[in-house]
Amino acid sequence: MTLILGIDPGSRITGFGVVRDTGRGCEYVASGCIRTGNGALHERLQIVYRGVREIIQSYGPVMMGIEQVFMARNADSALKLGQARGAAIVAAAEEGLEISEYTATQVKQAIVGTGAADKQQVQMMVMHLLKLTQKPQIDASDALAIALCHAHNRQSLIPHGLVGAKRRGGRLRL
Amino acid sequence: MTLILGIDPGSRITGFGVVRDTGRGCEYVASGCIRTGNGALHERLQIVYRGVREIIQSYGPVMMGIEQVFMARNADSALKLGQARGAAIVAAAEEGLEISEYTATQVKQAIVGTGAADKQQVQMMVMHLLKLTQKPQIDASDALAIALCHAHNRQSLIPHGLVGAKRRGGRLRL
Repeated sequence: MTLILGIDPGSRITGFGVVRDTGRGCEYVASGCIRTGNGALHERLQIVYRGVREIIQSYGPVMMGIEQVFMARNADSALKLGQARGAAIVAAAEEGLEISEYTATQVKQAIVGTGAADKQQVQMMVMHLLKLTQKPQIDASDALAIALCHAHNRQSLIPHGLVGAKRRGGRLRL
Repeated sequence: MTLILGIDPGSRITGFGVVRDTGRGCEYVASGCIRTGNGALHERLQIVYRGVREIIQSYGPVMMGIEQVFMARNADSALKLGQARGAAIVAAAEEGLEISEYTATQVKQAIVGTGAADKQQVQMMVMHLLKLTQKPQIDASDALAIALCHAHNRQSLIPHGLVGAKRRGGRLRL
């Protein structure tokens, strides 16, 4: 039983998702968005920083997955994303979480089974894997996908037979 | 007597400088670099975050100036710079500092008197204004320049005659 936090940072909205890895699969715990509003830059970054610490203190995850950014669209959006990412990562580090980065392809591969999946397919699979009856907001869904990806990668490091989850073709099966 | 922190964040080296604004000019207090080393991303960001908080706790500045980035070289370096910037800004915000951003042109204008000045000219003027006998490391010098720029901009908001510092052509005169 390990609680895993997934974070999808952004300059305006930071998605978060918490899942419980039971060793036999993952269960939904919580998800949502931190909205940074229209304040000054330092106020917006502080909202991300404090929001992430608050989520960690509320739910008690011990590890965090975050998407690794390879190629941002342009320098301006990369800077803004980087700032939010820096605030979120420092918050998790200050709370003592183990932090792992995954590429978008790794996340899609783990959730849908192919790195070429689109956002809607990932969202559908997140709902299916976590038995959600309502569609989560897209940033929350992305964050849950990253948390599931981390659970998947952890399990693949545990000798086969010790865990109940089975994998085939790189896809997480619960 | 107001202590002002200047920060020049970077993914490898974050320069810092602290000056004392006496109302009649600025005096040097401290400067240096936070080197983030070769650890994992979250460790490097935590070094920036904790380093900035430690500097604030050691010297007690109440306001911070930081360079505003308009056009980063490319998306990859912008992301890395953004992350370090996010960590530094959150650290100062958590310490309750008032934070102001200045463009590179504003900094050069305040220190050298022209926005077209080069880095060496800025460094020379920083040494002259703060009566330094040794050349500070370039990142530390840039951070001191931002702190001086903030002192300059504060003074320009105070009604003339109340402060000893005189300005001409946008340049800080001590």
